[in-house]
Parts: sequence; C-alpha cells; structure tokens
Amino acid sequence: MSVTLHKGENCGFTEKVIMSPQPQKSIKRGQTIFFEIPPKIIGRMSVVGEKEGKGPVGSYFHSVVKDAKWGEKTFERAEIDMLMAVIKGAIADAKLTENDVELLLTGDLLNQLTSSSYVARELSMPHLGLYSACSTMSESLAIGAAFVSAGYFDTVACATVSHFATAERQFRYPLEYGCQRPPYAQWTVTGAGGSILSKNGSGPKITCATLGKVVDFGTNDLNNMGAAMAPAAMDTLSALFEDTNTDSDDYDLILTGDLGKLGSDILRDLMLEKGHYLGQNYIDCGNIIYDVTQKCYQGGSGAGCSASILNSFVLDKMEQGQFSRIAYLATGALMSTQSCYQGETIPCISHAVIIER
Amino acid sequence: MSVTLHKGENCGFTEKVIMSPQPQKSIKRGQTIFFEIPPKIIGRMSVVGEKEGKGPVGSYFHSVVKDAKWGEKTFERAEIDMLMAVIKGAIADAKLTENDVELLLTGDLLNQLTSSSYVARELSMPHLGLYSACSTMSESLAIGAAFVSAGYFDTVACATVSHFATAERQFRYPLEYGCQRPPYAQWTVTGAGGSILSKNGSGPKITCATLGKVVDFGTNDLNNMGAAMAPAAMDTLSALFEDTNTDSDDYDLILTGDLGKLGSDILRDLMLEKGHYLGQNYIDCGNIIYDVTQKCYQGGSGAGCSASILNSFVLDKMEQGQFSRIAYLATGALMSTQSCYQGETIPCISHAVIIER
Repeated sequence: MSVTLHKGENCGFTEKVIMSPQPQKSIKRGQTIFFEIPPKIIGRMSVVGEKEGKGPVGSYFHSVVKDAKWGEKTFERAEIDMLMAVIKGAIADAKLTENDVELLLTGDLLNQLTSSSYVARELSMPHLGLYSACSTMSESLAIGAAFVSAGYFDTVACATVSHFATAERQFRYPLEYGCQRPPYAQWTVTGAGGSILSKNGSGPKITCATLGKVVDFGTNDLNNMGAAMAPAAMDTLSALFEDTNTDSDDYDLILTGDLGKLGSDILRDLMLEKGHYLGQNYIDCGNIIYDVTQKCYQGGSGAGCSASILNSFVLDKMEQGQFSRIAYLATGALMSTQSCYQGETIPCISHAVIIER
Repeated sequence: MSVTLHKGENCGFTEKVIMSPQPQKSIKRGQTIFFEIPPKIIGRMSVVGEKEGKGPVGSYFHSVVKDAKWGEKTFERAEIDMLMAVIKGAIADAKLTENDVELLLTGDLLNQLTSSSYVARELSMPHLGLYSACSTMSESLAIGAAFVSAGYFDTVACATVSHFATAERQFRYPLEYGCQRPPYAQWTVTGAGGSILSKNGSGPKITCATLGKVVDFGTNDLNNMGAAMAPAAMDTLSALFEDTNTDSDDYDLILTGDLGKLGSDILRDLMLEKGHYLGQNYIDCGNIIYDVTQKCYQGGSGAGCSASILNSFVLDKMEQGQFSRIAYLATGALMSTQSCYQGETIPCISHAVIIER
C-alpha cells in the first residue's frame, strides 16, 4: 500500500496538452455516451469513519466520524446518517437548497438498498434506486449526467455509502463472531460520498460515460473481491479506450474503485495483455485509503471507498489544477451470499465516467 | 377479485378523443419527463408460473411454466431462467438479435439483484442494475425511454422477474416452514416481463415518465404490502396528473402494479381525498392476476406481477385498439427484513410511465 500518495504528488500528474475524447459523429459509440452538454459537479461532500480518517488520504475528507454508530442504536442507522450527511453537505457545498435538487440517484450495499430508501424517504425528491454494488457511484454519475445533459433535469444528486459493520454482518459474519480474515481480504470502508450535478454553475465536467457489462472470470470466494472485480474493470476500461480513441497516456489519472492491492495488480496485468500499459497515473482507491500499518490486507472496498475519495482528494486535486482529465471506474462485485452458497461464482461490473476540468 | 376482466371487455374502455398530455414548454415539469421523441415498445414477452397461468388473465401470457423449478436445482435458478426467457423472447418478438440491443436495464427482488446479474453475465450488453422492488418494470421503462429519447442508445431491453418461492425464502419464511398467511397478505407472482424499446420500428409509445418519491405512511407489517404501497402510488399518480394537466378521465386505463384488493381500495380512497375519482378505468395487476378461488387473499405482488401483465394482456389490448392511452404505475415496497426487525416502517415508491398508441 503506498503512503507516498498522502499529498497526491506522485499520482503521475504531468504537464501536457490533452485532446478531448473524440466521439465519432454520434453521441454514443459502443458502450460510451458522449455528453454534448457536459454536466458539472457543482457540489460534493465526503464523510468517513475513524479508521479511514487515519489513512493516507485521511486529511482530505470533509468529515471524519469517530463513533462507528454515530450516536445511533444500530450500525445501519449510522450508515443512513452518513448518506444523508453527504447529500445535504453536497447540496450546501453547491450553495443550493434541497428544493433545488430535482432528482436523487443513490444505491448502497445493503439488501433492498436500505440506506438509500430511508434517506430518500426524508427528502422530497424523485428517487432512482440503483444497484451495482461498489460501482454505484459511477453508475449514479453516469445516469445523472445523462439525465442532466439531455435536459430532463437541471440539477441532480448522486451519492452512495458503505459501512464496515453492516457489510460484514450481511455478507460474511457479524463482528461479534471475531472471524479471522484471509490475507487476500479487503476491509469495507465506512464512508460516503455525494456529488451534485448541474447544467448550471461551475466545476469539473462529466464528458463521457462508459456503461459496463457484467463479467465473471469464475472467482467464488466472498473474501477475494479484488480478483473477482479486476476482469470487469479491464472490460470497461478497454471499452472506454476503444470508444473514445484514447489510451492510458491520455489521462492524468485512471482511478478504479476498490480493487485493492491484489486486484489492481491483476488489472495492470490484464490491461497489459490487451496492449495497454497502466503506469504511475493509475491508482486504486482501495489501495490508497488505508496505510499498511492499519492491517487491512489488500486495502479498502465498499461503495463508499471510491465515492469518498473521488469527492475529496481527487476532485480537490483536479480543482487545484493537478489533474485535467480523469477516468473514474468504480468496480462492483455483485455477489450474493445465497448464490455463493448455491455454488455460483461472483459476477462483477464496472461503470466509468470521464471527468475533465 | 374480479373475474370479469378475463377478456378485458370491462376495463372501462370508452371511445373518445383524448388530448395528449401537455408539457409546459420545457421537456420536464415537476417529477415528469416528456419525451420529445417517444420510444416505441417494439417487442415484448411474458412468462409466468402454473398458478398465474390458471388465473383470470392466464390465457394472455406468452408462456406458462408448470414446474416451479423449471428443471433446475433451485428456485433461484428457475427465476434466472425466466428473466432470461423474457429478454430473449422480447428480442425475438422485435425481430432483432442480441447484438442489436445496446443496453440492458433490469432489476429483481433478490438481494444484490441476483437474477439480473446472472442474466446480464450471459448477455454481452452494458447493464444498468436498478432497484425499486416491485416498481422495477416502470423504473426500467422510464430510464430506458429517457436514454433512447435522448439518442444515447437506439434500442434497449427492460425487464424484471419475481418468484414466489425465492421471495418467501428471502422476505418471510422458507416454504418448508408452512407458515400461515394473514388475510391481508398477497402472493408473490412467479413471472417475468420484458420489453424492447427503440427509436426505430413500430409499437406503443412511451410519451412521459413520472419518477416517484419514497413515501412511508408507517406500515411495518411485512405481510401488508398493499397498505404500505398505496400512499406511494397516490403520491406519484397525483404528481402525474398535475404535471401533465390530466385527470383519470384522460386515460383508458390506469394500471397499478401490485397493490392487491386492499391496497387498490386504499388508493381509490386516497385519490378521492385528493379530488380524483378512479372509476372503472382503474385496475391493479395484483388484483386481477389470481381468481378468488385460488386463495391468494388480496391478490398478487412481486416485480413480475405487473411486468408480465403489462407485456401481455394490457399491450395486447392496446395493439388491438381497446386502449389508446395508459398510465402504468408499478409500485414497490422497499422493505428490508433487517430494518423491520430493527423497528423501521416500510418505505415505498412508485414510478409511472404513460404509454400511448
């Protein structure tokens, strides 16, 4: 796990002129939509737990919550509160009120999108519930940007959340069991991120979205998310490069969601086999959110992992001029404990958006 | 439960000239999107289980599967097969091949959208995973229509599925327990429905979509879905009427998803309080899918309930000229067993689309 990324200097940023991705006449090509009127990210907010706050990018998060239950009776309630906090925080950051946001696009890891539903219940906005596990942030940005660019809505909110304790209870074992974790495991991030997209205002622009396919290379170990998700990231990143006539050099930063150390190494290998070299401009959020001393093995995972890092560290650096163009690919393992017990392998997906200054 | 609907003659169809819903300059108003280029439903398919096949609208379904496991080892696998069957069947009905479909929009009731993920894994299409419980069919039609109308994709597939045995196992008790059902319970439909939307070809058009808000009037009984969902249907139907300057008389058919007998009676009452009388042109899919002799109490529920009826009986009648304009509101109870055990009430949502000949 790299700790040199703490201040972002080594993310492979180089001064150069980058050409915009070139659509071929149509506004879509292959899996990619090119937004004629690119929506802007006019507000954003991140909240994380104590462990994430102590990690290499900890100082960039807007808010660090030290109590894992955030004063609530259950971890699930704390997760709901975190999602609400980033939505309200992002709206405030955009200098808007809740009435200005016309559509809410959220999802989370809990069965039946519990956190999303309870948050949406308190907000008087039409709601689209999305599920692509840890790829939810990029799915919501893709659909949100598509709706704004088409003129359906002027301003929308996109957000997601995850919580270590609720995810462990649901996908593996309740914390009280004290189960041992294998060395290839990741640690579900307690955190949330939210973005306000609008046709008005100023901020980084979402210029393209590449919608991912479901890919499954046969991993069936509920602890080995990185290996399961890397092929999905490879599939979408290859499509993104092909559809936009770009390669890795055309981006200051290629940011995957939560492959962790093992998964991002696998992605580098898979992309090399496809003829694309991912250099220092490639980082994985799961790989940078924890320090090696924090004993999280392969790093972080969870929908909140890349959502919180994108909406803090990464967009901070973009607004400061260090990044001009980012490819952001959140990655999701669509695993169900029920299916895995029935002998199925883990299908995965990755949706991508290109963000430009 | 009305059995007079078997052949559809009493759905309140009247010969009259209906004005199109009038947007106010913009292509959106309130919660409603008006599609400038309305996508057409060019292919569709429905599959149901044996019980549904014996119900009042049973003769309209394209395929009735008598074995609840459909030759598979698990009910979950059978559910996956049903979803695959309606997608492939709808593509064939549209006289297309899988390569012609550029985007797949699906969701289902299983945790982590299991059925959707395993189906998408086998199809080489970008996939958007959606969750709004039993409102998934109208959510997928709304987003799919929005993407086609905006020109992002030419042809997309929208589908959903539910299965009695998998839903009982997940939300209540495994069938083997033989639990008693209260009189206000509904029966989860074993069934699936799929639609192909395209800018090309011919078929009924999706002219508007009203995106619903999450509404919760405080029901916390996992068996009483109708009472929980009726307020969400009321909220969206009221918004649809207001945004489009229409009232119930402007539709040949107002079709809700799966409120059942009790829930649809509650909706009639709630709408009357809002000043809208729902007459004979209002029916609920949950209310018509089973006969009273089938002992399903308040009727059917599940994402596959309205998805299968819309894509068979209802669109058959529309193509035959009996309906000119339909408001279709699937209704979803976003209930989580975990949340209900923690003392939460059930948030609900309903998304609507207007379909015109």
